[in-house]
Amino acid sequence: MFDDLQDFYEWFAQRNMENSYEIKKVSLDEMPGWGSDPRTGDISHESGKFFSIRGLRVSTDHRETARWEQPIIVQPEIGILGMIVKVVNGRTYCLMQAKMEPGNVNLLQLSPTVQATRSNYTGVHQGNKVPYLEYFVAPRSGRVVVDALQSEQGSWFLNKRNRNIIVEVHDDVPVGDDFCWLSLDQIAELMRVPNLINMDSRTVLSGISFVAPEWGEWAETGLDHGCGLGEPLHSKEQLLSWFTEVKSQYSLERELVPLSEITPWRNSPGRIEHVESRHFSVVGVHVTATNREVSEWSQPMLEPVERGVVGFLGRNINGLFHILVHARTEAGTYDIVEMAPTVSCIPGSYTRSSRERWPRYFDELLRAGENGTLVDVVHSEEGGRFYHAENRYLVVDAGEGFGLDVPEDYCWMTVEQLMEFVRYGNHVNVAARCLLSCLVDRTTRKQLVEI
Amino acid sequence: MFDDLQDFYEWFAQRNMENSYEIKKVSLDEMPGWGSDPRTGDISHESGKFFSIRGLRVSTDHRETARWEQPIIVQPEIGILGMIVKVVNGRTYCLMQAKMEPGNVNLLQLSPTVQATRSNYTGVHQGNKVPYLEYFVAPRSGRVVVDALQSEQGSWFLNKRNRNIIVEVHDDVPVGDDFCWLSLDQIAELMRVPNLINMDSRTVLSGISFVAPEWGEWAETGLDHGCGLGEPLHSKEQLLSWFTEVKSQYSLERELVPLSEITPWRNSPGRIEHVESRHFSVVGVHVTATNREVSEWSQPMLEPVERGVVGFLGRNINGLFHILVHARTEAGTYDIVEMAPTVSCIPGSYTRSSRERWPRYFDELLRAGENGTLVDVVHSEEGGRFYHAENRYLVVDAGEGFGLDVPEDYCWMTVEQLMEFVRYGNHVNVAARCLLSCLVDRTTRKQLVEI
Repeated sequence: MFDDLQDFYEWFAQRNMENSYEIKKVSLDEMPGWGSDPRTGDISHESGKFFSIRGLRVSTDHRETARWEQPIIVQPEIGILGMIVKVVNGRTYCLMQAKMEPGNVNLLQLSPTVQATRSNYTGVHQGNKVPYLEYFVAPRSGRVVVDALQSEQGSWFLNKRNRNIIVEVHDDVPVGDDFCWLSLDQIAELMRVPNLINMDSRTVLSGISFVAPEWGEWAETGLDHGCGLGEPLHSKEQLLSWFTEVKSQYSLERELVPLSEITPWRNSPGRIEHVESRHFSVVGVHVTATNREVSEWSQPMLEPVERGVVGFLGRNINGLFHILVHARTEAGTYDIVEMAPTVSCIPGSYTRSSRERWPRYFDELLRAGENGTLVDVVHSEEGGRFYHAENRYLVVDAGEGFGLDVPEDYCWMTVEQLMEFVRYGNHVNVAARCLLSCLVDRTTRKQLVEI
Repeated sequence: MFDDLQDFYEWFAQRNMENSYEIKKVSLDEMPGWGSDPRTGDISHESGKFFSIRGLRVSTDHRETARWEQPIIVQPEIGILGMIVKVVNGRTYCLMQAKMEPGNVNLLQLSPTVQATRSNYTGVHQGNKVPYLEYFVAPRSGRVVVDALQSEQGSWFLNKRNRNIIVEVHDDVPVGDDFCWLSLDQIAELMRVPNLINMDSRTVLSGISFVAPEWGEWAETGLDHGCGLGEPLHSKEQLLSWFTEVKSQYSLERELVPLSEITPWRNSPGRIEHVESRHFSVVGVHVTATNREVSEWSQPMLEPVERGVVGFLGRNINGLFHILVHARTEAGTYDIVEMAPTVSCIPGSYTRSSRERWPRYFDELLRAGENGTLVDVVHSEEGGRFYHAENRYLVVDAGEGFGLDVPEDYCWMTVEQLMEFVRYGNHVNVAARCLLSCLVDRTTRKQLVEI
């Protein structure tokens, strides 16, 4: 455990030096082990494992565009994102891993204790055994405190889910070379550093309030400020009813189609891209690494055209900070909609003059910074599948002048109310979970109640 | 409102007399408006609406049989099962409807206030307007107290869900000819009468504890008996983790295939049946009725080979009555497993000598009656799709001699714990919800705590 973060930064720099990696973009035709089906153009691994990239035709009445086609990652297996935590003297410590992912802009980031696809732990990789995996598969010695199947990026994955699991241990845990304990306070501080706490950590941490004793204390801090005494705008029943109503009202139909036939996408030599350079491209990368399960490999990845923006607009209602949650439909959403940030978009994929609607609340989100910005930091998306995919994460106070009337697929709820839905899986999408994890700390809690 | 149930029975007999119906089984080839696709054999309505009967190929590692084919009802639209309730002097009253369904053995049963498919209320029927529908579609005047998308019979429907919704009103509601108010106490008593409270009512009533003030009072009655002071065997986190673990562990893959090609099913002249007369058949019926939306129609239905058994084995653990919940996979289950009764089967589909396993806990369920039977009643399944489909509903006390160790896809939980999961939709299957609704009354609550 680190007494202060300077020690952590030194350790992390050391990890960076002791492992050398080289990432090279390659043509999709030059990836050993991977190939395109001559009939469909679908990209898959010769073992039939890992994942494949296929074409998807989407029809829905819940987006600006009623029908579109796109490449999508198909990976039906459920992976594990597992965090070992330990509570010592009322403080929560998480066992984090310094882990290289080829898509990260800075290669090395902090992942949860275990980040394993089913292929990882059933040996398809023929690589090393996944450390600490035994804590997450039955029979396990620790106490499971959070355990839910959660969705990943619905715009890029079809129905993909990972098991997000937090296990509390009381006994000593041997700490491997690339692993370290960080307190929740330290993680909260590091969450303000760009591209350091990876997506897998952020999604798991969105459930940490169910284990951390600090959480109760922080909540009380709020009450001491004389705020937080009001009632949420909507009861839990009303929120569930809103969610049910949106699900009943909209439809989402998907059909897998040959990757080579989707429009308006083209197979430029070696990569698949949108003809107007919107959304993302499918690219190949070659990786040489020394501390991964295997030391060299190639794989396809999705590369967004530019940095995205995900953010919650919030405001004080009845003395409680509420955020505006969007019931959002994405191509790969498991069950029509999930609870999402107020805004999620890649602005470069829109033009103000285009036939598509400029993203709702986007301008308000950027403007609202004047009243108070609670979170404003750039984080990376999963570096195992996405190449240099970054989002600007924002939580802003829009002020009490911001009207309470919102379209029917938006709903005001408190941070605690949204957190509670994280428990049940497939309710809160990955961007919203990542934003929640940026709100789990003493400083932000104090800010929240002072709004 | 009826002062005593005798008045209700008289009213119900009157309803039966004032509406006459004739149900006739017909060949699948003799249903006006319905036809078989000459290429696939799939049965559908010429309008493309209502539902269709298609072939399904199932692969799973979570049943005795790893692979099978069967006919299945495909009805992707989400219907409404809605109940209007009113609380007067601390007692809850439900607005019930005397409703004919062609598949009911006794034709007339008590349904919720509204029981409408999307076709019903968007006018595909070209029939009468659905009474009281305006209470369930926004903007509505009442207070929504329960609202969730719930699954229907997974063995017979593919991914079918209905919106189960309870709306509490304060104003006067005009009571139509086929409608009546019944108190929760009266409904509980009628729930012990065979084939009276229909499936749609039972599933909606499984959420009634979230509105009924009686519930708190009955729970307290329990505590007064000096019982119910213990802790549940598993915490909510542990139950969620168990459910997540089972979902992660098993797989369920489905593929729609031509109905005419599934094996071992045969198209006997006019009906589709299993060659060994197991499971169910697909049959045609012709209906002549005077008080339905339209006065005459034909439709296909599923007819089970015999009466089924669904039941919870329970026992006292730590002073609380626990039931043994099965995480069950059925052909049409939306997300791999749902929480189901300990036993659900059609015994006639098994033989003790067959290669398939005799249903687990079936013998124990029937034997356990000796310790105490809390529920033992025959109810009908949905009479709009199923012909003479009955199940014997059982909740029995297996006694403390019954071991706590159970297979990994079974889990002990209290009745309240299972009820809480009903809120979230797609957690508790329809058989389990129907059993829960049999436990929502004063007498049973007292029995439970006395075990």
